[in-house]
Amino acid sequence: MDNNITSLPAAPHAATSHLMVNLSALCDNWQRLDSLSSNSCQTAAVVKANGYGLGMEAVSQALYHTGCRSFFVARLEEAISLNDAFTANEMFDAKIYVLDGIRKGDESAFHHYSFIPVCNDAAQIARAEDIGVKQGRPLTCVIHIDTAMSRLGLSVDEFARLAPTLASRASLSISYIMSHLACADDADHPLNHAQLARFRDVSDRYDIRQCLGNSGALFLGTDFHLDMTRPGLSLYGLAPDGSDQHLSSVFSWTTDILQIREVEAGTNVGYGGSYQTPHPMRLATVGTGYADGLLRHFAPHLTLHIAGKPCPIIGRISMDSCVIDVSHLSETELNQASQATILETSADAASLAAKTDTIAYEIMTNIGARVARHYHGGV
Amino acid sequence: MDNNITSLPAAPHAATSHLMVNLSALCDNWQRLDSLSSNSCQTAAVVKANGYGLGMEAVSQALYHTGCRSFFVARLEEAISLNDAFTANEMFDAKIYVLDGIRKGDESAFHHYSFIPVCNDAAQIARAEDIGVKQGRPLTCVIHIDTAMSRLGLSVDEFARLAPTLASRASLSISYIMSHLACADDADHPLNHAQLARFRDVSDRYDIRQCLGNSGALFLGTDFHLDMTRPGLSLYGLAPDGSDQHLSSVFSWTTDILQIREVEAGTNVGYGGSYQTPHPMRLATVGTGYADGLLRHFAPHLTLHIAGKPCPIIGRISMDSCVIDVSHLSETELNQASQATILETSADAASLAAKTDTIAYEIMTNIGARVARHYHGGV
Repeated sequence: MDNNITSLPAAPHAATSHLMVNLSALCDNWQRLDSLSSNSCQTAAVVKANGYGLGMEAVSQALYHTGCRSFFVARLEEAISLNDAFTANEMFDAKIYVLDGIRKGDESAFHHYSFIPVCNDAAQIARAEDIGVKQGRPLTCVIHIDTAMSRLGLSVDEFARLAPTLASRASLSISYIMSHLACADDADHPLNHAQLARFRDVSDRYDIRQCLGNSGALFLGTDFHLDMTRPGLSLYGLAPDGSDQHLSSVFSWTTDILQIREVEAGTNVGYGGSYQTPHPMRLATVGTGYADGLLRHFAPHLTLHIAGKPCPIIGRISMDSCVIDVSHLSETELNQASQATILETSADAASLAAKTDTIAYEIMTNIGARVARHYHGGV
Repeated sequence: MDNNITSLPAAPHAATSHLMVNLSALCDNWQRLDSLSSNSCQTAAVVKANGYGLGMEAVSQALYHTGCRSFFVARLEEAISLNDAFTANEMFDAKIYVLDGIRKGDESAFHHYSFIPVCNDAAQIARAEDIGVKQGRPLTCVIHIDTAMSRLGLSVDEFARLAPTLASRASLSISYIMSHLACADDADHPLNHAQLARFRDVSDRYDIRQCLGNSGALFLGTDFHLDMTRPGLSLYGLAPDGSDQHLSSVFSWTTDILQIREVEAGTNVGYGGSYQTPHPMRLATVGTGYADGLLRHFAPHLTLHIAGKPCPIIGRISMDSCVIDVSHLSETELNQASQATILETSADAASLAAKTDTIAYEIMTNIGARVARHYHGGV
């Protein structure tokens, strides 16, 4: 170890793959989504799965600055990380909702932190009550009713059985009754109105606020907004049904060019001997591979860009890199370029998803840990 | 914030998805691979991409204890993290090879740390020389020749031009000349021997050690071992061609059961209304979703297990969870079960990969950050 040099390069510098996150666009989207619902309806933010891959802490803090105060995560771990970030920045009035609820063994954490558990079954409600009793004041929680997902939450019947006594339990303070739409990305799907009806049928009789709307529901009309909406994907620039909802692109994904080479016709490129160059070509190797979330099956469906020109992926994607065709770029263009663009806008993630039979959510949440997140903008 | 409780649950407790890593099996595999080559041939370990998803630091430290001293990573960032782990454990004689080489801007890091860059082009060699001059002693490096990947490394011609002067450059100490096989997972592929011949043709004339063998090459015979092998996948329990090479399974992937429910016939499960139960069913929701690396297209090809009984995935995989059919399990089996198994052995990752038209490497390296890594065993 040589200690002559004291200033070390920051880690993001060393990254070869970069996710650029526009926090101003993110905040614009939250404002736009917030404006869709009435003033009495709160607009939360779903920031689970590392803020849909964009970085939970940075995304949440930017949203806090623009006025958001309610944040949904899935796991207790995520809540703890997010709470650390909020506390460090004195954002003490941010509310963190935990969709997994209070699992067995989680009680001390929910006692310690002011997280709001989304109670999914009678056992979770009982744990919430126990914590309320122990701390000598009601525990604020959400009751989740399943109306068509069969995933998490009380069945409508269970809720109907429990509900008459819930409101009177002194150790619980139920801030919302919530449910989740299965088909909100398809405005015409009959399940949307069926779920809304089922939800209101059991919850309207209680004087408790209601929360149903995910991103898709925000665009289904005011009937679906109720007392709180909780957009996820739309915050990040994409309407779930792919429609234009005046959302701003929030992210782009670029990668460094590691090496450029000229090869003869008949040269093997990549693993498996699956590609031989049909003619002499100029190739660029870029520093993003399948371990970074650039999955192997994307290869025929994704075209990178340098200087605005399309550069197809050649051969198989490797773990840490892939090779693109830059034969048609001029020397000047290549000399000036240090990076290639993988996804230029949020919409490109949706477009790649459509071509690879998946959804943008999956592409975003699988962008790997080695990909540096760079933030600009904000309020 | 309530400060009555001082001991907080550790984060891994809160995870709902778990990768169990058997460090004894990992070390057994390294010993087995090491035994294939002669005593004069060193056996390194490829631990890039977070140790193929299993956790770079833990994997590397276990391998160090079993005798491994040479570790390959892709990125400078990975090298810095790994160096921190080795230094904290006083493993000062571990050598870290950086496959990306010295990129522009990386010079101060390579000056500061004792990393061994894999030089992929003339500019990287020049940077290595500059560092050697600056530090007043030769910089140890590897020269990478491309023999059929067209990915990284000097072309054979470039190397032939540069080589006569390389050995005499006082500021460089070339520890190895290396190349990388494109088809080592296919023992009969003609490219294997062609690459070996190309590699030796240009490098045999210099008195510098040679390194060619990845996991696949280890099983191609001693001709391919040369002076150092650098297995990756095989360490983690899998031969690249799927053959039985007496490797031990290194990992399993399990997930917590979040909720169990009974549903009537005709009940929607999951997003999109794509699945309705054909008859009354009992379903379990488990805490692993596509954001954890359980990709949506795995659904029809992957069967989870509880109490040794297969539990197929029902409906679409969600971001944080999926639903499995547990109708055929007894009450006792369900009461005793808190988890379902996603992959029971390393081989299950290969089997899933084969069914989903990819490779185990991709499945492993995309297991998400929320999945807790649990280690047991070791030397």
